[in-house]
Amino acid sequence: MKAARLHEYGKSLSLDEVPLPEPGPGQVLVKVAGAGFCHSDLHVIDGELSLPLPLPLTLGHENAGYVAATGKGVCSVKEGDPVVVFGGWGCGVCGPCASGHEQLCDEPQWAGLSRWNGGYAEDLLVPDERYLVKLSKIDPRRAAPLADAALTPYRAIKKALPYLEPDYKVLLIGLGGLGQYGLKLLRILCGCDVIAVDINQEKLKLALKEGAAHALSGRDPKLVDRLLDLTGGKGVCAAFDFVGSDQTLAAAVASTRAMGKVTQIGLAGGTARLKVLAESRFEVCFEATLWGTLKELREVVALAESGRLGLEETEFAPLDRINEVCERLKRGGVTGRLVVTP
Amino acid sequence: MKAARLHEYGKSLSLDEVPLPEPGPGQVLVKVAGAGFCHSDLHVIDGELSLPLPLPLTLGHENAGYVAATGKGVCSVKEGDPVVVFGGWGCGVCGPCASGHEQLCDEPQWAGLSRWNGGYAEDLLVPDERYLVKLSKIDPRRAAPLADAALTPYRAIKKALPYLEPDYKVLLIGLGGLGQYGLKLLRILCGCDVIAVDINQEKLKLALKEGAAHALSGRDPKLVDRLLDLTGGKGVCAAFDFVGSDQTLAAAVASTRAMGKVTQIGLAGGTARLKVLAESRFEVCFEATLWGTLKELREVVALAESGRLGLEETEFAPLDRINEVCERLKRGGVTGRLVVTP
Amino acid sequence: MKAARLHEYGKSLSLDEVPLPEPGPGQVLVKVAGAGFCHSDLHVIDGELSLPLPLPLTLGHENAGYVAATGKGVCSVKEGDPVVVFGGWGCGVCGPCASGHEQLCDEPQWAGLSRWNGGYAEDLLVPDERYLVKLSKIDPRRAAPLADAALTPYRAIKKALPYLEPDYKVLLIGLGGLGQYGLKLLRILCGCDVIAVDINQEKLKLALKEGAAHALSGRDPKLVDRLLDLTGGKGVCAAFDFVGSDQTLAAAVASTRAMGKVTQIGLAGGTARLKVLAESRFEVCFEATLWGTLKELREVVALAESGRLGLEETEFAPLDRINEVCERLKRGGVTGRLVVTP
Amino acid sequence: MKAARLHEYGKSLSLDEVPLPEPGPGQVLVKVAGAGFCHSDLHVIDGELSLPLPLPLTLGHENAGYVAATGKGVCSVKEGDPVVVFGGWGCGVCGPCASGHEQLCDEPQWAGLSRWNGGYAEDLLVPDERYLVKLSKIDPRRAAPLADAALTPYRAIKKALPYLEPDYKVLLIGLGGLGQYGLKLLRILCGCDVIAVDINQEKLKLALKEGAAHALSGRDPKLVDRLLDLTGGKGVCAAFDFVGSDQTLAAAVASTRAMGKVTQIGLAGGTARLKVLAESRFEVCFEATLWGTLKELREVVALAESGRLGLEETEFAPLDRINEVCERLKRGGVTGRLVVTP
Repeated sequence: MKAARLHEYGKSLSLDEVPLPEPGPGQVLVKVAGAGFCHSDLHVIDGELSLPLPLPLTLGHENAGYVAATGKGVCSVKEGDPVVVFGGWGCGVCGPCASGHEQLCDEPQWAGLSRWNGGYAEDLLVPDERYLVKLSKIDPRRAAPLADAALTPYRAIKKALPYLEPDYKVLLIGLGGLGQYGLKLLRILCGCDVIAVDINQEKLKLALKEGAAHALSGRDPKLVDRLLDLTGGKGVCAAFDFVGSDQTLAAAVASTRAMGKVTQIGLAGGTARLKVLAESRFEVCFEATLWGTLKELREVVALAESGRLGLEETEFAPLDRINEVCERLKRGGVTGRLVVTP
Repeated sequence: MKAARLHEYGKSLSLDEVPLPEPGPGQVLVKVAGAGFCHSDLHVIDGELSLPLPLPLTLGHENAGYVAATGKGVCSVKEGDPVVVFGGWGCGVCGPCASGHEQLCDEPQWAGLSRWNGGYAEDLLVPDERYLVKLSKIDPRRAAPLADAALTPYRAIKKALPYLEPDYKVLLIGLGGLGQYGLKLLRILCGCDVIAVDINQEKLKLALKEGAAHALSGRDPKLVDRLLDLTGGKGVCAAFDFVGSDQTLAAAVASTRAMGKVTQIGLAGGTARLKVLAESRFEVCFEATLWGTLKELREVVALAESGRLGLEETEFAPLDRINEVCERLKRGGVTGRLVVTP
Repeated sequence: MKAARLHEYGKSLSLDEVPLPEPGPGQVLVKVAGAGFCHSDLHVIDGELSLPLPLPLTLGHENAGYVAATGKGVCSVKEGDPVVVFGGWGCGVCGPCASGHEQLCDEPQWAGLSRWNGGYAEDLLVPDERYLVKLSKIDPRRAAPLADAALTPYRAIKKALPYLEPDYKVLLIGLGGLGQYGLKLLRILCGCDVIAVDINQEKLKLALKEGAAHALSGRDPKLVDRLLDLTGGKGVCAAFDFVGSDQTLAAAVASTRAMGKVTQIGLAGGTARLKVLAESRFEVCFEATLWGTLKELREVVALAESGRLGLEETEFAPLDRINEVCERLKRGGVTGRLVVTP
Repeated sequence: MKAARLHEYGKSLSLDEVPLPEPGPGQVLVKVAGAGFCHSDLHVIDGELSLPLPLPLTLGHENAGYVAATGKGVCSVKEGDPVVVFGGWGCGVCGPCASGHEQLCDEPQWAGLSRWNGGYAEDLLVPDERYLVKLSKIDPRRAAPLADAALTPYRAIKKALPYLEPDYKVLLIGLGGLGQYGLKLLRILCGCDVIAVDINQEKLKLALKEGAAHALSGRDPKLVDRLLDLTGGKGVCAAFDFVGSDQTLAAAVASTRAMGKVTQIGLAGGTARLKVLAESRFEVCFEATLWGTLKELREVVALAESGRLGLEETEFAPLDRINEVCERLKRGGVTGRLVVTP
């Protein structure tokens, strides 16, 4: 089968012919229908992340497709089933794994980000049947981004739910792929008015259309003052920073109410700084959440299947054009989600 | 001023002329614009509740109006302010009060349900300014039911939030005044598909219009089987029983998933029965929630002010017709909420 | 190998010679050092539980021993390792399994209580290496009861932790094997004074020695009044009922504070009855917890290894005397824990 | 009466004769028996905190004494009652106040740290009877430190309880007054082994005596490596930093497990820095907790009254020597707690 593999950091992916994997006991082979190209793959290709990867490696951790073959003992899926693939595979034994948070495994086995190959290939070997979430109505090609672009903000919001009190507003910074899902999910999961912040005016308009109560430019040097004005000086009950620069993190911390929570989402390189009684209110909690659990992916897929969560606009590209996709994403200017279709 | 007072259990309310109360330090006098007539008042009038009430007493615990006069030291409201009145007053000292759950006070001081008179009168004396939630857009007459009919299901749902996982459905039994708010609030606060159950076909149609995914007749002798069918045998993640009869409680318990929660809302006389490994799944949690906190009322009012929570249809009746209102409610057949307007 | 198997409900166990199981991929064979004889086994033998069991079956779900052989791919344990065996095996795919609560699996695969044989045998086949919790200091024979007798109250207490506020007392009913661990664990995990209730005076004395602040006879017809006296009329913040009869459950409900929690532990046949505003305070939450998770077993074992949790007195009996053990337990009068040593 | 007042930042306190306050409705006058001299008072005197204080002001926020006079309507205490005074007074109306977290009030009214005078005086005017926690066995002079030195770590630990899993260790940095109470409280409230860190060898010895499992020098340049060694590379489940310098905060973050929590306690001037995938594990949560609630103070007092929480060594000094106390604390070298006795 064909697979787009990384041979050397900083270089283009190479379209290689590799042997079709055979599923062992409990494993499943999935014919990839769509593999979302995620911004974090750019960091991986450039060698910017500290994950130790055995090269060559097939990237792609946001996958969906059809069951192609099942290993011995598999009983929850059968050939032909359309599925989204949970990618945050774990060792199964460590503390996070034992409590159902495999994506936070002490020794991550993530699809396409560990010794396991990912979905930029015709087929994907999945190490355990339980990682598959069955689809009924949605096209797997369009469903692929649920496995990361929707799952990641979903977890961030779910972990912040106890903070989301509707007599306070909530702040969302950054309306890229994940941020747009974040806005939609906030509208489904809580009653707080959303203040959306971005540097792109088009995205702010879109946010208002999607239900944001307020839209503010991230270029405004008085952003924090504006946020305090909008909240009657009280601050927001929770802030979700999908940009994650030093500046956006500082703005998020400064505009959060006492007992509120700031969540950073994504792998950007900023640093959150917290100093008691200085530039933050009392007991502001900070956390950078990471991806989501298998159970949470099931919840996200259910929201999409029921029609509550609309899928973002998706653009498709064939596997052999993956390096062009990569270049376009680097240059920015991609609206919606790019999905590779092997 | 005029006040509708209960002089004897089982008798009609009497329209008395009583002295206008004067607000002491920290207290506020509110000119009543609307006082919701709540089903539980029927139980009170008939002497069915075990609350020890000093008669004669002015009933009415679901109130809104305008600030008429303020006592010494009051600074958060001023004359003329439109307000909803939180009615779950407490002693301020006991455990529940000290942790912000005044409505669960060890010695309840509830408006119209303790030594304190309620809102079936021209004016209402409120013992502390903090019990007032200011309105900006909504007419206080229409806002009165927020103080109980919306607040009570809001708390029930909020306490069940950790159980509301969108890959499971949620069950709502009883589409009366509180149940209808319950449905609306479930649609705002979580992503679960709602299964609505009632014995009235009109109300089931209304529920589907309001976003319920399924509507089932409560008269169906195979109700539990239907519920299991709709949930693929798994059961619902949470059940909210607004009827609270032995039968509905049993159905709620029987159709809830392992680790799910059954919440009873309202003061009906049924008994929930829970027996390990019999007629319920593992670790089903049961709780009868009661009314809501001041903080929760602020959240409900914010939802209504922002337009997310639409107000239910309201029917108005002048204070001197309060006994007719009482009779009509007893006979059933009232759609929406009845509000007394002094 | 020898195994004590149930061939027919209501009959004695039969000591059979059965083939030694061979561990498949990911599986582990454990040489059983100790298998706790649990009260619930009596219910199983008598056919009183509704679990559908394929007979003949080797019972025994509270096991510890030494790794005897490992299947392909096993890497977290090796031959000779002393281990406690988590017994609440699950399907791995359902909702409870996916969130780390395997013991609540929709289709339980429990050791010795499903199609999987248990530990009343010379060897035990464990279907996944992750079910093993390694020991370092404790003798596996004495550690066996940790897998149920200590784990079950541990989970019950852990789920009630948010209710355990030290300005309230906590109630523990029933000082049998699980109840005694419950008392020890309450002393480790919270600061509440414990009121212990039992019908046996010896056990009450023991409870005081183990740190209970008060000991009351369960035979006292005024038990609830005594409990209210001891709590200044406020009630306890949480009640743990290890007996689970109609009477004890009613006493637990009646003496719990507003916003408190009643937990039932064990598989006894009583029914909890909850009726709003009658014989209970506001918002008393009820739950029957069941066994514990793998993660919780690790925590219990850590407590025992660190010396914080002292092991209960244990009495040992060889496998071929298992039917005598069974009889003695039926007659009552066993202090501490009975462990079968194959 | 005599009161030690701050007239100018950076200057000594002045022993003034001021009028005895008279309690208004709901207020209580307390004859001060002991007023703990807290390290944060040094910051206040030096004008280092950003709190806007109306000078002259009587400092002292850690108070206990006897009820001297009660205002109209007060019914929960009477003259002569020994009491600890909760000092985190709030406006009663804002979000934090309405949910029972008065010490986090949007406009703090703290005793001795706002327009309200504190307890470095013969008598203290308390604005609401509910702020008093009655004592039965403990001497108020010795109980004063409960109101801050014990309350503050208590809240920090209570908010971290869901993270305190006994198969992981917990880290405590800084064994000053609050840290010592922190250690005692960890031993009461959870089953985790404690690793204590301090730069003072005497304090480390004391920590081991008080139940710490490990004691490490804070001067060790390889501190983080040592912490990882002690935790098998996994990290601690929670870290409590009572020092709060840049260095200690960094060490706490670096040695905390995935999904763990770092809590900063106290008003020291360090900055916590958090950067995704760099120098911290996944989803490490950070929060600086502040003081405690009235309800939490009741819990702390209950722990002390029951004997579970031993009081720290206390040194007493008369009110007219308060400036000496201040100097001694500045120079360091005070073991235990200094209490001013007017």
